[in-house]
Amino acid sequence: MLEKINKVDDLQKLNIKEKEELAEDIRRYIIEIVSKNGGHLASNLGVVELTIALETVFNVNKDKIIWDVGHQTYTHKILNGRKEELKTLRKLNGIAGFPKTSESPSDCFDTGHSSTSISVASGMARARNLNNEDYSVVSVIGDGALTGGMALEALNDVGYTNTKMTIILNDNQMSISKSVGGMNMLLSKLRTKKLYTKSNISAKNIILKVPGIGKPIVKLIQKVKRSIKQLIIPKMFFEEIGFTYLGPVDGHNISELENILKLSKQIDRPTLIHVITKKGKGYKYAENNPDKFHAIGPFNIENGQEINEKKCSYSDILGKTVCKLAKKDKRIVCITASMKDGTGLTDFAKEFPDRFFDVGIAEQHALGNAAGLAKVGMIPIVPIYSSFYQRAYDQVIHDIAIQKLHVIMCVDRAGIVGADGETHQGIFDMAFFRLIPNVLIMAPKDLKEFQDMIEFAIYYNGPIIIRYPRGGEENTFKFYIHNKITLGRSELLKVGQDVSIFAIGKMVERAMFVAKELRKKGIYAEVINVRFLKPLDKRTIIKSIRKTKFVVTIEDGTIINGLASSINELIIENNIRNVKVLNFAYPDEFIKQGSTNEIEKKYNLDKFSILNTIEKSMKKRKDYSKNETNNNIIKVNKKEHIS
Amino acid sequence: MLEKINKVDDLQKLNIKEKEELAEDIRRYIIEIVSKNGGHLASNLGVVELTIALETVFNVNKDKIIWDVGHQTYTHKILNGRKEELKTLRKLNGIAGFPKTSESPSDCFDTGHSSTSISVASGMARARNLNNEDYSVVSVIGDGALTGGMALEALNDVGYTNTKMTIILNDNQMSISKSVGGMNMLLSKLRTKKLYTKSNISAKNIILKVPGIGKPIVKLIQKVKRSIKQLIIPKMFFEEIGFTYLGPVDGHNISELENILKLSKQIDRPTLIHVITKKGKGYKYAENNPDKFHAIGPFNIENGQEINEKKCSYSDILGKTVCKLAKKDKRIVCITASMKDGTGLTDFAKEFPDRFFDVGIAEQHALGNAAGLAKVGMIPIVPIYSSFYQRAYDQVIHDIAIQKLHVIMCVDRAGIVGADGETHQGIFDMAFFRLIPNVLIMAPKDLKEFQDMIEFAIYYNGPIIIRYPRGGEENTFKFYIHNKITLGRSELLKVGQDVSIFAIGKMVERAMFVAKELRKKGIYAEVINVRFLKPLDKRTIIKSIRKTKFVVTIEDGTIINGLASSINELIIENNIRNVKVLNFAYPDEFIKQGSTNEIEKKYNLDKFSILNTIEKSMKKRKDYSKNETNNNIIKVNKKEHIS
Repeated sequence: MLEKINKVDDLQKLNIKEKEELAEDIRRYIIEIVSKNGGHLASNLGVVELTIALETVFNVNKDKIIWDVGHQTYTHKILNGRKEELKTLRKLNGIAGFPKTSESPSDCFDTGHSSTSISVASGMARARNLNNEDYSVVSVIGDGALTGGMALEALNDVGYTNTKMTIILNDNQMSISKSVGGMNMLLSKLRTKKLYTKSNISAKNIILKVPGIGKPIVKLIQKVKRSIKQLIIPKMFFEEIGFTYLGPVDGHNISELENILKLSKQIDRPTLIHVITKKGKGYKYAENNPDKFHAIGPFNIENGQEINEKKCSYSDILGKTVCKLAKKDKRIVCITASMKDGTGLTDFAKEFPDRFFDVGIAEQHALGNAAGLAKVGMIPIVPIYSSFYQRAYDQVIHDIAIQKLHVIMCVDRAGIVGADGETHQGIFDMAFFRLIPNVLIMAPKDLKEFQDMIEFAIYYNGPIIIRYPRGGEENTFKFYIHNKITLGRSELLKVGQDVSIFAIGKMVERAMFVAKELRKKGIYAEVINVRFLKPLDKRTIIKSIRKTKFVVTIEDGTIINGLASSINELIIENNIRNVKVLNFAYPDEFIKQGSTNEIEKKYNLDKFSILNTIEKSMKKRKDYSKNETNNNIIKVNKKEHIS
Repeated sequence: MLEKINKVDDLQKLNIKEKEELAEDIRRYIIEIVSKNGGHLASNLGVVELTIALETVFNVNKDKIIWDVGHQTYTHKILNGRKEELKTLRKLNGIAGFPKTSESPSDCFDTGHSSTSISVASGMARARNLNNEDYSVVSVIGDGALTGGMALEALNDVGYTNTKMTIILNDNQMSISKSVGGMNMLLSKLRTKKLYTKSNISAKNIILKVPGIGKPIVKLIQKVKRSIKQLIIPKMFFEEIGFTYLGPVDGHNISELENILKLSKQIDRPTLIHVITKKGKGYKYAENNPDKFHAIGPFNIENGQEINEKKCSYSDILGKTVCKLAKKDKRIVCITASMKDGTGLTDFAKEFPDRFFDVGIAEQHALGNAAGLAKVGMIPIVPIYSSFYQRAYDQVIHDIAIQKLHVIMCVDRAGIVGADGETHQGIFDMAFFRLIPNVLIMAPKDLKEFQDMIEFAIYYNGPIIIRYPRGGEENTFKFYIHNKITLGRSELLKVGQDVSIFAIGKMVERAMFVAKELRKKGIYAEVINVRFLKPLDKRTIIKSIRKTKFVVTIEDGTIINGLASSINELIIENNIRNVKVLNFAYPDEFIKQGSTNEIEKKYNLDKFSILNTIEKSMKKRKDYSKNETNNNIIKVNKKEHIS
């Protein structure tokens, strides 16, 4: 059946039975591709029928369908001209794992982070109303994403302002972990309601038109509150805040989905359709283990086993270390924004259930909650992915840094994350945190140093940020030296007089490789593991610069306001003359998808590119004396994007 | 009565009648002080009785009362040892207009921005539970603040996890403007309920214990849905998401307030008390005009008139210019996060009600909504105060900058705002925006240039940030030159060969003053209005630096990653030798309250300090030749806060 579908309009030619076959074909195709490329499997399997029904009833080239988070759009991409290209899913220069307006006009908005779709869709609906256009606007949002403040803010606005649009609540009872929160409690009541079918729905049930009734009955009603609550209150909640509620409907029944979607098109006000789906639907390993198959690497279809052996990651070390420390120190608690597994806290949650808080996809509240805990003497540890820390920026400044609260902010997935692309690369955190007063910023060179930094952070008293990359297995170089962590002190790993290499985090390993190679050629490099981006170990760094007059900085972050900026500033502030500088960092642009290795190569941040660039530069350097009067600073990835 | 109260414990000696007298005394005292010092009058007058009741029933030195936003804590400060000191309210080195743990242990957490209190309080409640302590935790939050995503995220978490704490919903039907949103619709139903009194409350009404009832009655109930909705659904919403709901109660009746608060202490689960208050209560001008008296400058008590004549501000110019442009261009729409008046949009809202969206205190949604509008061709203008833009940081990066959407982000209250202190100073925006790819950042030197920049922004196509200060009246210098705004081009205001002064925004006026004064002493300063922080006009700036070899940068933002950083980087990247540099900016610290003038003086950013510092530096410069080989960079407010 998949062969018959070359464009979305072909859907119109199929009857329901054929669409059901199509759904099965698509499912197999997605499983096949994700088993090779990795990707978000479970959520995509959950919305195959929903996508088919949506794109049958709505016209994706005119109507606007905004997929919240957007990682569940593989079926949409297959139906919209990217069936073959899907084989390049998540690859460098391939099809993205998220909607991209640059790929197709049927992708009407780029999403990636959670909880944005109602805001965006209502903006489009407002524009349509102002311009008297007649397209439909649909937000497809999961029950997990509904715990995000941005979604709740939008929900609060849309019903009140009676902005005509449709919200498809894709209720799978999961965010990434199991859904939490009061909203989830409300929804769970609705899930038990008799499912919507065409035969049991009528206009009467959609728009309530019963006139007011006198006091005696109201009194009677008071008595049966609990029964009412369980049956109609949650539905009424949505109606009270301005929505027409339809459903719940079986999200794997194409026929019923099409009926309810058609019905919704006739309603001239905000409408919420409650769709019950199953994450991982149709692939037993994913159905049984939707957490694991939420985002997965290549796997064996036959047995559901991941192909690449999992090595110990920074997230794992966080979990282990915190478990160890928490046994001794009762003040330690952990908070996650719906990323228990991803951030390595699974064991901690088991071992210390009272001291573990999953607050939902709610980064703002996670940090506010941490601030409260810290204020009364607890030590909250809050691991959140780098790009999601952008969601809690005000809380870090306003609720934590001003009062110098002892919150340990663990920035996971810092630097390049690879296949998830622009929306998920963690290249800004060093820059946006460095400008906040009162905070400490560290990054470990390897797993052992990460452990030491966590211990250091526990016994420091103030806001601390520790950033570390996805994975950890890439650390092939074995560090034997692990000097004690001391506040604001770097670590001198190699003494040399020809060039000073300053590196931070995972880039220290590359600095060591480069130094080793240079030595073979008679060049003596000094290697300094910067450790603290803030406060910077100025004395050690300046001393090294004055000695070598040749500076290399290496970091996995943006060129603006990170390590390069910090060290260049030192040079100019301290009037150090005749210095040659090479800054290795990402340029001032959003970094597209690819494997981490490919991206690093592209931006000259892999170890060989770094080595070659330094070598070339050293040769040039030899041509003139060290006593020239000019500094010479080269940003390796310099880019002038607006001019 | 006020004289009898020297510490909060003295409340226990008073009977209800005496407390009512006390409330009147406090009211008069607050009106008197705010009429002199300015401040948040209306909200403080609204919570006098509530504060008295709260601090009678709870022990502020043991229990934790978190005041959301915190601008309504004047009564609390009077009751807690700061009666006399309140006369220094909002002054340099005086009592803050917000809770400060540094002032008193009875201020248990610093607040300032909206919607944080439930998160913070629940963190404290969790700590208490873990440590088996027995204090109460109370969040006092307005209905306006409940539209903020952070508060909604927390509300979603607290009930679900059954975290024992009390939320006092201070419902005055106002945020700063009139409250909006679905939550407000829910609350409005409750407001009409019979008010709580001791006589009509019973345990039966608090905790519902009616057993389930059979199908026939449920069917009957279906028929009377609408009646039920109006009476009990909103209350049940809170109960469904895990709270015991108490109220509504008259927030100006101390006796009833005390009763309900005592009752709440006995409930061993999350409790929400719905308190109805009147903003501005007891001062007729504030009651009639709570918007105006929300935050007000010194005023005449007799007639409610502000003493300082209002001059045209940047916010006013925004409103006027946008109104003018919107007549010609139908794509222009405006979005506010509950700051219609503060951001100058009152007239726009009247003239273009369909194109004006007040989304509530919901900065994330405001920017997400703008992204949706922009994506389909509208031109959204979103004025938000600088420190509140921190709340929408991810949306600017993720929803706007990646897709290069044409959203005009107007950063109002940029730079020092004065009396509101650390939480409200707008000193970080240039720094945190500059590191985002694809954005343009501008700041106007005066009101006329602001107009030009808005027009420029309308016809540019991409994300644009325009930052401008509170007020505008301080522009005493009259600019005659207003060159056309050109993308990425600075404006050369004065040609000179002795020193290059680079200034941005309101600081340009100071640069001109300094240049004029220097000329009297035979020193010829070149003055460049930088205009674009991003992209920087490198060619013009470098040319000037090469000529004068003496650089002064002046900005009203942090020293990290703003104008100073940008220009210092240019010097080092372009190997310009023998340059003397003076960077005028705020140091890496949070800036406390005071008048803008006082703060600027303290940090050497007033025009005389700038002039003197430059003069001294020029004298030294004369002592040695321009041909020295060193650069010499001085950050005027350099501070090493951690070492």
